[in-house]
Amino acid sequence: MTLEAIRYRTGSLQILNQLLLPHQTVYDDIRSVQDAYEAIKSMKVRGAPAIAIVGCLSLAVELRAGAGGDDPVTFIRESLCHLTSARPTAVNMGRAARELMEFAENESMEKNSEQLRESVIAWIEDMLERDVNDNRKIGNYGAQHILSGVPRDSVTILTHCNTGSLATAGYGTALGVVRSLHTLGRLKRVYCTETRPYNQGSRLTAYEAVAEGIPATLITDSMAALTMREMDITAVVVGADRVVANGDTANKVGTYQLAIAAKHHGIPFYVAAPSTSCDLSLESGRDIIIEVRPPEELTSINGVPIAAPGIEVWNPAFDVTPHQLITGGIITELGVFLPSELQAALTGRLTAL
Amino acid sequence: MTLEAIRYRTGSLQILNQLLLPHQTVYDDIRSVQDAYEAIKSMKVRGAPAIAIVGCLSLAVELRAGAGGDDPVTFIRESLCHLTSARPTAVNMGRAARELMEFAENESMEKNSEQLRESVIAWIEDMLERDVNDNRKIGNYGAQHILSGVPRDSVTILTHCNTGSLATAGYGTALGVVRSLHTLGRLKRVYCTETRPYNQGSRLTAYEAVAEGIPATLITDSMAALTMREMDITAVVVGADRVVANGDTANKVGTYQLAIAAKHHGIPFYVAAPSTSCDLSLESGRDIIIEVRPPEELTSINGVPIAAPGIEVWNPAFDVTPHQLITGGIITELGVFLPSELQAALTGRLTAL
Repeated sequence: MTLEAIRYRTGSLQILNQLLLPHQTVYDDIRSVQDAYEAIKSMKVRGAPAIAIVGCLSLAVELRAGAGGDDPVTFIRESLCHLTSARPTAVNMGRAARELMEFAENESMEKNSEQLRESVIAWIEDMLERDVNDNRKIGNYGAQHILSGVPRDSVTILTHCNTGSLATAGYGTALGVVRSLHTLGRLKRVYCTETRPYNQGSRLTAYEAVAEGIPATLITDSMAALTMREMDITAVVVGADRVVANGDTANKVGTYQLAIAAKHHGIPFYVAAPSTSCDLSLESGRDIIIEVRPPEELTSINGVPIAAPGIEVWNPAFDVTPHQLITGGIITELGVFLPSELQAALTGRLTAL
Repeated sequence: MTLEAIRYRTGSLQILNQLLLPHQTVYDDIRSVQDAYEAIKSMKVRGAPAIAIVGCLSLAVELRAGAGGDDPVTFIRESLCHLTSARPTAVNMGRAARELMEFAENESMEKNSEQLRESVIAWIEDMLERDVNDNRKIGNYGAQHILSGVPRDSVTILTHCNTGSLATAGYGTALGVVRSLHTLGRLKRVYCTETRPYNQGSRLTAYEAVAEGIPATLITDSMAALTMREMDITAVVVGADRVVANGDTANKVGTYQLAIAAKHHGIPFYVAAPSTSCDLSLESGRDIIIEVRPPEELTSINGVPIAAPGIEVWNPAFDVTPHQLITGGIITELGVFLPSELQAALTGRLTAL
């Protein structure tokens, strides 16, 4: 069984309410752009790729019902502005909005309202399909690369945070690699870190693994090095918030520490990310500013205090892993590249288009 | 202000109830061996050194009130058996019981009941004083060693778990080093990891730091490497459950990962432990069996589930740090030694006695 975080059929959209996970599995109807705005704002859906997809699909649902009347372009523009404002830091929604708006304006030159609605719906449905397909390619390239390096029948993977169906349009990036290995019958087990302070590993990755019958074991973040030493880990695979030109990678806090431990144990360390997460405008990770989040994320769980009152807290949301530690490679929908090859690979592809 | 976890005056004993920390500061009276047994069993007091001290002090309280009548040796033997059975894996209680029993039997040859009670009480009070003094020596040796290596006015320390007044007879081991640096006016700040899954760092170390005004910052375990890179950490100092002959050290899970990260950043890594925690009968850490604890410690907090139902869990309670990673040294009450010097230092001292 494949976990469906986003259920879309032409004219209808449902999302798995992540606020109720992992204890309740409830799908909420998204009937309008406003429904999607509220779901994004309240974090019923999270993960930058998933936010963009749900936002755009909600627009497709309204357009299918005839929204926008004789002036769909204005309706589309206002809807995209509204959706982008729900979580302004989720860059994928902003990028999708710009691209879709440009497409809609061009189409409006030569099409009537009904035709325009149809082509915008088709564009959005294509975006969903392309995202899932890109993730499947990442999964397959990553699985083949990992398997090519080992003589064994089955492999054991260690991953961090949640990079699965719940964070993307579907399938996932790093967890997509794990899914592919499982589908091939070559996954012995995946170890997932709980990923403090937000526990995306214990809540979401564990949920996906249980839902799909993927053999998985939860550990605390502090057990990763011991797991590498004791559990015959074949590779560490993580996602990325942003990969810059030299291969330095910003990702969920704890990734840097995992990369150091992997290097110490001689275990290949992979980053899995679509090319849209690569930002060649930054030379190195030194230019990335570390976002510091509220202390309460460490000092309470579900509103219940768990730390000594009055203690100071440092809560950086992510860290930057230098490219030297990304020893396995960067897995994209175009293939697996060493950090030093990334820039050429991506710009070569852009030239070839 | 110094945090008092154990309040003892001849004939009276109170302990800080650790089950209520960090949210309530309540001292419970311990009037009898049975009170101490229950406090140890229910984990109102924890930490192997603290358990032994509280157990023995409860015996001293009863003896002061005349317990044992005409046959104090039998009363002492039965009390020590009972106390040792409360947490059989806490080795210090067992060792203290053996030593105290031998002492009491020897004394009983030449002393009457009243004199025997007095000398056993004196032995126990001496044990309390010696333990605290040993910890102060550890604190001072460690502080001097760390300061001798740096040209700076003040230092920043990273520590793990709880190794302070709440885990020992008083003052602490690794946290004793931090206390000494603070007392010398040379501590800029200590970073303490929350120490999943039992959160001894966020609950207990943070509590001690706030109570004593030690500048401290709480981080998740996964932020340690980033903290080393960004926060100018002078040294990492941790405690030990057991140090074996070659210097390999068993300690709270996560210690191994910290040692790897410290090595990667060129930061000295210290283990602070009294010589009584050194076990020269084991050659290397390979012989140490890793205790695996219940999954519920990861999947719930205060009885509230926090992980996906059905996920498998691996929960090793501690790990073994190989001596090669203990680059700063092993801090004992006898001085600071490299792992390779430890055996000679300890056996030399024993010979000299």
